[in-house]
Amino acid sequence: MDKQRLDQQFSFIREIDKEKFIGRQTYLTDAVRKENDAEHAWHMAIMVLLLNEYANEDIDKLRTMSMLLIHDLVEIYAGDTYAYDEEGKKTQEIREQEAAKRLFGMLPEDQRDEMKALWEEFEDRQTKEAKFARTLDNIQPMMLNAATDGKAWEEHGVHLSQILKRNEKTAEGSAVLWEYAKENFIQPNIEKNRIQTD
Amino acid sequence: MDKQRLDQQFSFIREIDKEKFIGRQTYLTDAVRKENDAEHAWHMAIMVLLLNEYANEDIDKLRTMSMLLIHDLVEIYAGDTYAYDEEGKKTQEIREQEAAKRLFGMLPEDQRDEMKALWEEFEDRQTKEAKFARTLDNIQPMMLNAATDGKAWEEHGVHLSQILKRNEKTAEGSAVLWEYAKENFIQPNIEKNRIQTD
Repeated sequence: MDKQRLDQQFSFIREIDKEKFIGRQTYLTDAVRKENDAEHAWHMAIMVLLLNEYANEDIDKLRTMSMLLIHDLVEIYAGDTYAYDEEGKKTQEIREQEAAKRLFGMLPEDQRDEMKALWEEFEDRQTKEAKFARTLDNIQPMMLNAATDGKAWEEHGVHLSQILKRNEKTAEGSAVLWEYAKENFIQPNIEKNRIQTD
Repeated sequence: MDKQRLDQQFSFIREIDKEKFIGRQTYLTDAVRKENDAEHAWHMAIMVLLLNEYANEDIDKLRTMSMLLIHDLVEIYAGDTYAYDEEGKKTQEIREQEAAKRLFGMLPEDQRDEMKALWEEFEDRQTKEAKFARTLDNIQPMMLNAATDGKAWEEHGVHLSQILKRNEKTAEGSAVLWEYAKENFIQPNIEKNRIQTD
């Protein structure tokens, strides 16, 4: 038994427990409690299993799922930056780069490099797996917002133009899912005035 | 776009949001809040990525991860049964079978059968993937219990004999991880009298 390696791995595994305390702006389906990063990642990993058939190109499911499971870990140190927080987004990249170095640095070198590469792949949005992962990362909160009658959109006074800008690449991962989301999650909430159109 | 298929898939995906409300008995590392099923599954899916090298036999990571991600979904209808709740365990199997039928029945037939098979594989503990998944399912809460100085063990007055009985097959998935858990999670808590030995 390589105790040092195992100790490093378990230190990291214990540390990432903190992801369960990183709050997001999305309400869960009870419309009371807001989601945390770990719950969000879990939900999307299952969505890979069930929705991969709609990816624009055939994807490696394990890699896509792994990317989604770990993509928010940097927020343990860098905090969650809300989709429409323009101030926060200015410092987001540098904060997250430092967080990645610190967090993944807890692992044995081979796994440190592997996890960092996986995280960067998601951030860079170039591979078909990263594109599909980003599609789900945008559609999952949209689905929850729609399930709670647009509560988070209304509270933040979100405009349709902001949603469309944020989603300008969502179809790159899956044209079908973006179409479905527009029709079933966005459109009804425009009609109910939960999303502002002016 | 096959709208009916997508509607069924998204109905299921929305429904499983409820897993985030199914509480477990394990304290998170803050020793205040208890874990929910979705957080627990997320944590273990990452553990597959980092610890699969210790499986007794080479495992299919995607299948193992998928199994862990969905294995507790039945608790949405059947509730969580605590590891040492002997009364609850008597009715657990029938409650969970009915829950599986109802929940997975929301999906298109092919995915209903796929998800049900995955859940049953975990329950049956026969394949090497299921064995490793069950190892993680036992070791993850043990790690959290140890991280909180055995708080949950102490509160429930758990005896070493109960832990050993519950873990009589844990080494079947990974002898190394079970050895590590005994030395690093259980032994220190026997010494601190958080686990009872009489």
